[in-house]
Amino acid sequence: MSSNYRNFQNSVPLLIIILEAAFIILFYFFDIDNDDSPLSGISYPAFQDVSHMMIFGFGFYLTFLKRYGFSSTGFNLLIIVIGVQCSMLIEGVLVSFLPNKIEDRLKRRTAVVSTTAVVISSAAVLGKTNPVQLIVMTVVEVMVFWMNRWINTKFLQNPDNISMMHVHLFGAYFGLAVSSRFSEPSPRSEKNGSTPKSDLLSMLGTLFLWVFWPSFNSVLAADSKGKAIYNTYFALAVSAVTAFVLSVLTTKDGKFRMSHIRSAVLAGGVAVGYAAHSIEYPWIAMILGLLASVITILGSYCLQRCFHATLEIHDSSGVHFTFGLPAVLGAVAQVILFVIKNWTNLPSLHFFVVIHIGAFCFTISVALVTGFITGLILNLKLFKTTPVSKYFEDQFYWEFPHLSVGF
Amino acid sequence: MSSNYRNFQNSVPLLIIILEAAFIILFYFFDIDNDDSPLSGISYPAFQDVSHMMIFGFGFYLTFLKRYGFSSTGFNLLIIVIGVQCSMLIEGVLVSFLPNKIEDRLKRRTAVVSTTAVVISSAAVLGKTNPVQLIVMTVVEVMVFWMNRWINTKFLQNPDNISMMHVHLFGAYFGLAVSSRFSEPSPRSEKNGSTPKSDLLSMLGTLFLWVFWPSFNSVLAADSKGKAIYNTYFALAVSAVTAFVLSVLTTKDGKFRMSHIRSAVLAGGVAVGYAAHSIEYPWIAMILGLLASVITILGSYCLQRCFHATLEIHDSSGVHFTFGLPAVLGAVAQVILFVIKNWTNLPSLHFFVVIHIGAFCFTISVALVTGFITGLILNLKLFKTTPVSKYFEDQFYWEFPHLSVGF
Amino acid sequence: MSSNYRNFQNSVPLLIIILEAAFIILFYFFDIDNDDSPLSGISYPAFQDVSHMMIFGFGFYLTFLKRYGFSSTGFNLLIIVIGVQCSMLIEGVLVSFLPNKIEDRLKRRTAVVSTTAVVISSAAVLGKTNPVQLIVMTVVEVMVFWMNRWINTKFLQNPDNISMMHVHLFGAYFGLAVSSRFSEPSPRSEKNGSTPKSDLLSMLGTLFLWVFWPSFNSVLAADSKGKAIYNTYFALAVSAVTAFVLSVLTTKDGKFRMSHIRSAVLAGGVAVGYAAHSIEYPWIAMILGLLASVITILGSYCLQRCFHATLEIHDSSGVHFTFGLPAVLGAVAQVILFVIKNWTNLPSLHFFVVIHIGAFCFTISVALVTGFITGLILNLKLFKTTPVSKYFEDQFYWEFPHLSVGF
Repeated sequence: MSSNYRNFQNSVPLLIIILEAAFIILFYFFDIDNDDSPLSGISYPAFQDVSHMMIFGFGFYLTFLKRYGFSSTGFNLLIIVIGVQCSMLIEGVLVSFLPNKIEDRLKRRTAVVSTTAVVISSAAVLGKTNPVQLIVMTVVEVMVFWMNRWINTKFLQNPDNISMMHVHLFGAYFGLAVSSRFSEPSPRSEKNGSTPKSDLLSMLGTLFLWVFWPSFNSVLAADSKGKAIYNTYFALAVSAVTAFVLSVLTTKDGKFRMSHIRSAVLAGGVAVGYAAHSIEYPWIAMILGLLASVITILGSYCLQRCFHATLEIHDSSGVHFTFGLPAVLGAVAQVILFVIKNWTNLPSLHFFVVIHIGAFCFTISVALVTGFITGLILNLKLFKTTPVSKYFEDQFYWEFPHLSVGF
Repeated sequence: MSSNYRNFQNSVPLLIIILEAAFIILFYFFDIDNDDSPLSGISYPAFQDVSHMMIFGFGFYLTFLKRYGFSSTGFNLLIIVIGVQCSMLIEGVLVSFLPNKIEDRLKRRTAVVSTTAVVISSAAVLGKTNPVQLIVMTVVEVMVFWMNRWINTKFLQNPDNISMMHVHLFGAYFGLAVSSRFSEPSPRSEKNGSTPKSDLLSMLGTLFLWVFWPSFNSVLAADSKGKAIYNTYFALAVSAVTAFVLSVLTTKDGKFRMSHIRSAVLAGGVAVGYAAHSIEYPWIAMILGLLASVITILGSYCLQRCFHATLEIHDSSGVHFTFGLPAVLGAVAQVILFVIKNWTNLPSLHFFVVIHIGAFCFTISVALVTGFITGLILNLKLFKTTPVSKYFEDQFYWEFPHLSVGF
Repeated sequence: MSSNYRNFQNSVPLLIIILEAAFIILFYFFDIDNDDSPLSGISYPAFQDVSHMMIFGFGFYLTFLKRYGFSSTGFNLLIIVIGVQCSMLIEGVLVSFLPNKIEDRLKRRTAVVSTTAVVISSAAVLGKTNPVQLIVMTVVEVMVFWMNRWINTKFLQNPDNISMMHVHLFGAYFGLAVSSRFSEPSPRSEKNGSTPKSDLLSMLGTLFLWVFWPSFNSVLAADSKGKAIYNTYFALAVSAVTAFVLSVLTTKDGKFRMSHIRSAVLAGGVAVGYAAHSIEYPWIAMILGLLASVITILGSYCLQRCFHATLEIHDSSGVHFTFGLPAVLGAVAQVILFVIKNWTNLPSLHFFVVIHIGAFCFTISVALVTGFITGLILNLKLFKTTPVSKYFEDQFYWEFPHLSVGF
């Protein structure tokens, strides 16, 4: 193990230095400047809200593990900043190679939003990967996600904001596929649990995500921002209420369980993402929020017992039912809502349904296949997989206060 | 007690499901749409700031109790989302029933701001109510508060933003009246205290409230937003300074007490709420902030010794002196400032004073009477009151990490 | 010690009351009104972001000490509100005394930004000063900083935003000079350390600062706000990445050290402050962020071993390498960038270089000299210096919830 650790020590700096040097050099050669910055496509307050959500909200959302707080917040920051740079670079490269028409369509993208996929995937393998594996996963996932969006937009004629909303779907299934290649933690291990303090900190992150989710869903809605905001708010409100109900109904002695609340309060925001800008009446968003919360908690109840046990997938922070299932619901709901609204106009309806279902299935397939391959690669000897006994353990990566003296 | 708990387990889901179903159905029938949304009366950044304050700021402001962190943040979220939906619905209903003129006057309201009353009241009974009681209280209070505002605006000709600012006053006195009907916690109980960690988390929430308070006070000021913001900032600054002075002067061994700081730093913001948009010079706001902080700390010193002991009221988080007294001060100050400014114009002056004092007394009376009745109702056998021995105890409602296994 | 404490008890209220009375009276006499408010020069969202950074971000950034969380957040709030009032007053006084031309130039300043200097200085003496000393330091430092800016702007013809950016430089060196006059804590003391929990709370504050730093750097950039924002973001991103690399390389067993991450992730934001509005390409900002992170971590490695040990300076939170050195780098980089850009235009170039280097050296000298004098004054018997055994100890100033054990 000690030698294991030595290797980790050597490879982290090397990998990051090479990556960062490549970023700077490519930024230089592809002449990416600030005026054209993909970040500037959206207004600063919206950009900042999303950045706040990612860095702070997700960082603390993931601190629920007893002894993994430093890594949760620290590595989250690390992969986001790498993901954002990587994402901006890909965009810059695409813009310089592609003809004008595509360029326009690609321009209004936001690098920060894309990193959501990476954050969600990293949550699925939380506590089981070392930083080298996380960084490799980040770079691969950002590239694949971009490729997927590009195919979605170009060949499947999917609108911009929809292909972006696949971010939850993609992140969750990519993460699950990667996670299936990692060994399960020992069931007797106590480290894979939470303390009241760590749960409370995680609640802090969750409330942050909750408050900023309307910004996230409206960031790409060009013309109906207000609608996107209030629909998201209503969906989130109803999921929060439903989360409390279902938590009482599904736990053994009828108490609330913090992990239920934590995942189900956000489900509504994820589910309404696809259709937020087009829903006319709040009651539709409310029903969507209710359904999202239901499938999240029932999902957590059933999936962990049956599905995951059979497939030997261990999903550290429950991304499958927090982000995966609600996103599936959202994608289906969007198609249903569109069909109901336009049922008189059959030909265009047919086209729309095929496109959306196609894009949706394509995205899940790409996520699963590439995630599985990434998982295989990450388990190569080269990457010095963390031993199962060191899962969920900050001390394997971080100097601990009681050991250090100075500053 | 076990049977007590069973009942709680059955009634929470039932109550919430009925309520939520009613909300969705009524939203559908009253045809409340997003464009007309009462939320859209204010800009998104302002709406988000207030939402952040309520969900996150108040949630953590109330975590000071040793073993009540989960309930403080969780139930706070629950009652806010129920309160907002309820408030929007009442507004939608009023708008569809009332003639046009009233409708205009009612439109620019914000559902989120109204829920402040509920949050404040719930703080007064913090740790003593079960979720069923909290939800019933929320629905009743939102309705009564709306009725009160409607009477204030229609019959007492009170301007919009003033009737809204009664939110602190109403919340505090309603909460106190409810609280008078609950038995006091055992004086030997240690649970009704804080730890350094819980105090620090509570400080976190307080600083959030402090930073966002200018947004709160300016959210309804139509034309003089800038004034409202900076007056609030000055009042808050001076209350913070004064809080430190008075804390040293009133504690036994001359040290700072965290609970003093926590309540007094916000007092200035509450007091200046009424007049924030009309104060001309910062020094007036500063004096108001100073006075607010003084009455808060002296209030906490005297009220807890004399007044509350006599009336057998137990005010868990000191809402009487944190929100109640500063709001009274603010209402009085607004009248005095108006009189000083317009003393040449006697007839209109007379009218103004009568209206304002009337509205103010009316609001307090309504809050006290309806709060008292609500307190009586909540103590019916039907609601399975939490036994005194289980006050301030998360474990009565929440599954605790070490007891749970999965996810 | 007990008598020591008595004195503290008497002097804190007295000092604050006198100060606050003076503020209110001077605000009245200098007729500072809200419309002319220096706060209103910047938009409310920007003002709020900076306020959030100062109050909340810095408050929690400094909670890393094991037993000093109450004082870190509480005293931080206290000195900021005093600093802001003091700063606004000085501005108001200058505006009323100075002729019109200067007035215009001075108007667009922000009182909140100036207090950054005070916060940084207070971090250098964190845990070693009592509140009376902190308040005196605040008032002196704000005055000296204003004087320095005034000289910079008037005699050295330094542009507004540059003279403002000296805030980090000034704060760090003033703080270090003050700190050199305080005795070092006992090396055996365990209080000068952190726990995993306090480190995590400090990370919370750091992430807040990280997210809001682009707002800080853009707040004074009149015309190229967008550029300032994105350059800062890139610099911060690269410093975060570099921080992880260097932390692994410099710690004994190749692990990450939280204190490295905490200071180095912000270094890029500090360094890019001077030139943020004028850098054309993100890769330049990225290189600056990289260099800033490097000098921060190498600085922490070397300075603590050699420089500080020799000079007997004890820098509680490492402000020298977190704010001081990156600010020096930023000032130098700005000059170099300007020279590269304008090397054809020799005469104006010469002038520019002299002005900037002059202003920079002048600011450091003023900070060091006045800081040293302030340090001497603060160690007068009058101020009842905290005994070394009570350094880093909340309980010396705060009433403790002493009865509680675990959460």
